[in-house]
Amino acid sequence: MNAEIIAVGSEMLTPERVDTNSLHLTAELNNLGVEVVTKCVIGDDRERLTDAVRRAVSRSEIVILSGGLGPTEDDLTREAVAQALGRKLIFRDELAVVLERRFAQLKRKMAEINKRQAFLIEGADALPNDRGTAPGQWVEESGSVIMLLPGPPHELKAMFERQCLPRLKRLLPPLAIRTVFLRVAGMSESDLDALIAPVYTKYRNPVTTILAAAGDLQIHLRARCATAAEADVLLAEVAGPIELLLGDRLYSRNGDPLDVVVGQMLRRQHATVSVAESCTGGMLGERLTAAPGSSDYFVGGFITYSKEMKVQLLGVPPEVLQQFGAVSKETAEAMAAGARLHTASTYALSVTGVAGPDAGGESVPVGTVYVGLADAAGVLSVHRQFIGDRTRIRTFTCQMALDLLRRRMAKP
Amino acid sequence: MNAEIIAVGSEMLTPERVDTNSLHLTAELNNLGVEVVTKCVIGDDRERLTDAVRRAVSRSEIVILSGGLGPTEDDLTREAVAQALGRKLIFRDELAVVLERRFAQLKRKMAEINKRQAFLIEGADALPNDRGTAPGQWVEESGSVIMLLPGPPHELKAMFERQCLPRLKRLLPPLAIRTVFLRVAGMSESDLDALIAPVYTKYRNPVTTILAAAGDLQIHLRARCATAAEADVLLAEVAGPIELLLGDRLYSRNGDPLDVVVGQMLRRQHATVSVAESCTGGMLGERLTAAPGSSDYFVGGFITYSKEMKVQLLGVPPEVLQQFGAVSKETAEAMAAGARLHTASTYALSVTGVAGPDAGGESVPVGTVYVGLADAAGVLSVHRQFIGDRTRIRTFTCQMALDLLRRRMAKP
Repeated sequence: MNAEIIAVGSEMLTPERVDTNSLHLTAELNNLGVEVVTKCVIGDDRERLTDAVRRAVSRSEIVILSGGLGPTEDDLTREAVAQALGRKLIFRDELAVVLERRFAQLKRKMAEINKRQAFLIEGADALPNDRGTAPGQWVEESGSVIMLLPGPPHELKAMFERQCLPRLKRLLPPLAIRTVFLRVAGMSESDLDALIAPVYTKYRNPVTTILAAAGDLQIHLRARCATAAEADVLLAEVAGPIELLLGDRLYSRNGDPLDVVVGQMLRRQHATVSVAESCTGGMLGERLTAAPGSSDYFVGGFITYSKEMKVQLLGVPPEVLQQFGAVSKETAEAMAAGARLHTASTYALSVTGVAGPDAGGESVPVGTVYVGLADAAGVLSVHRQFIGDRTRIRTFTCQMALDLLRRRMAKP
Repeated sequence: MNAEIIAVGSEMLTPERVDTNSLHLTAELNNLGVEVVTKCVIGDDRERLTDAVRRAVSRSEIVILSGGLGPTEDDLTREAVAQALGRKLIFRDELAVVLERRFAQLKRKMAEINKRQAFLIEGADALPNDRGTAPGQWVEESGSVIMLLPGPPHELKAMFERQCLPRLKRLLPPLAIRTVFLRVAGMSESDLDALIAPVYTKYRNPVTTILAAAGDLQIHLRARCATAAEADVLLAEVAGPIELLLGDRLYSRNGDPLDVVVGQMLRRQHATVSVAESCTGGMLGERLTAAPGSSDYFVGGFITYSKEMKVQLLGVPPEVLQQFGAVSKETAEAMAAGARLHTASTYALSVTGVAGPDAGGESVPVGTVYVGLADAAGVLSVHRQFIGDRTRIRTFTCQMALDLLRRRMAKP
């Protein structure tokens, strides 16, 4: 079965915007054994959009539109699909009621134009939107199915998962697709590829993909077989040697990000963690608290951007700052020790570095980072030199700090 | 004049790949006054590709194809365009000579299949490729121009800049494009649209686009005129009334994000800020330190996730926590006052709320947020109820806190 994806909206045709919804939808469709054969982005132009829908429906079994379901004149998806299929748009009182309730929940007045969102294509099913106001639509037409989904990614993802996936699974023949999703810290993409390519290049099934982000590498293995058992055997055959080669650089076998893995280890050990951040400015705390329930192990932290704060809040000795500088092994270790002392946490992580782009008063190059770790056994620190822009250096640094704690906990 | 962009290649239809060539081409075309009205990605399928080219040529003056110019059977762009235009492909000896020379330069043997790259569409101009082997093509057809460019971004960029831009400039009338980029906090997209639509819908030039992110709205106005002065006058005519309607909800006239605007205000006032964060876990500090040079005004902060930390690090009275709860107006205000006291900052922002998805021990619904602000005049706080997932609630909350500080500084 083939699918086409159409993103709607002139704002998606600017030099700044990329249609990321289609990537998510492609991954989901591939998992069902469906190939995406065409993707389009169409501006707010009814004639072009109607034409694109008509042609997509004529040659593909699945057509997904994202965006253009808002309340304004520009939002043309409902009308264009109705016109392409030669169907009417019908005002549905029950959808208007849901919309009004939604706005009441949000303690917002519903503008009159929002009623446009209560129009449904003749014969379509409305798809409830748990995360926003615009309902989606599911329309079947002579062997094809057309889905109208909202543009905001968090709304689209939830609606696709909860409303569309179950319906699609009923339409499609069973195919077992199984994936293994490994995550690796502390090495470069080219080193990783050089290490594991001799294993994975021997196989066309599973398909292996390596994705790289700042300080974080992902390896996806995707096997498609007639049964899940066959796919699992095939995956084990490829993933086994790869895991062996990766050793302790492998931090996740199920795709969990590093902060979640660290959180689970802390929870298992009934341990807690605190942070003391300089150049990351709160980003490390933010990552450690990104997972729900992180209050089980995250106690608190200090953002000590100035030298004074490092002294006052963390008790870093002024002579350490004077002798070694704010960006130094000694300061990182004193910051970690101070955070641990003041929060009584099991572990404390500290960060001090130069995120740039200016090197500031310190005689230390941009990208210099020290991460400290304090626990009952004492303090230690790691030094790294990163390259890249401010955001990239800060992201790399947080990943490095989390990985330091992971390795410490893995070898008590 | 309108343009369509078609990226060719099944590898561009995987969940990992994004067509970045089209973003570069869009920026270049917009600078010439050309709008991109449709973008497509088509797999290696001759029939679909031929059909897409035929339709694009029938309705747009400029059609650009990227990719599919390689030497293999999968590389179908030359054949599909020739077929769509009803023209022949002609083997050109002089192109074969250039290819052979190119391979010799690269000290590689030219395979026989590379001769496919020496076929030119009847009547087309060959576009030399300084960075690779595949030559591009420039074809004119009854008022339209079709460009065939190579897929690798560095080859495409060089070819477009050196070969296509000079030719396009000769075809197009001179045009000035000017933009205004407004940013707004503290209202919903539909409320914003209801407020300003009566102004902007009167104009087709400038083109107005509204973009929405969590707690942050952007308004882009783009005017196209014969001269820059005319475009500026037109923009003032539309942006003036919009700015008046927005009042103090408008926080940026040049596209700067809220943290940058707040940083600039702090710097101008020679003021400093500190933070005390509960549910945002460091995200507010991270945003305030995202801009280079933020150490000029950001002093430091506290991440007080547990009640104990709120008491110990910030001096929130235990009886306040007991009587009103950790997520309350009183706690938010005590947190802000404590952060200000311990850092001696001019302003202190505090955040306490329930980011979810679980409500925890508090009898407060998910999405409940209190933001506090302390300064020399005392403390104040604001309460909001957000919906969405954990990340969205935390992002909204940070935007709300930054906006509270901005408004406070704007009206001293």
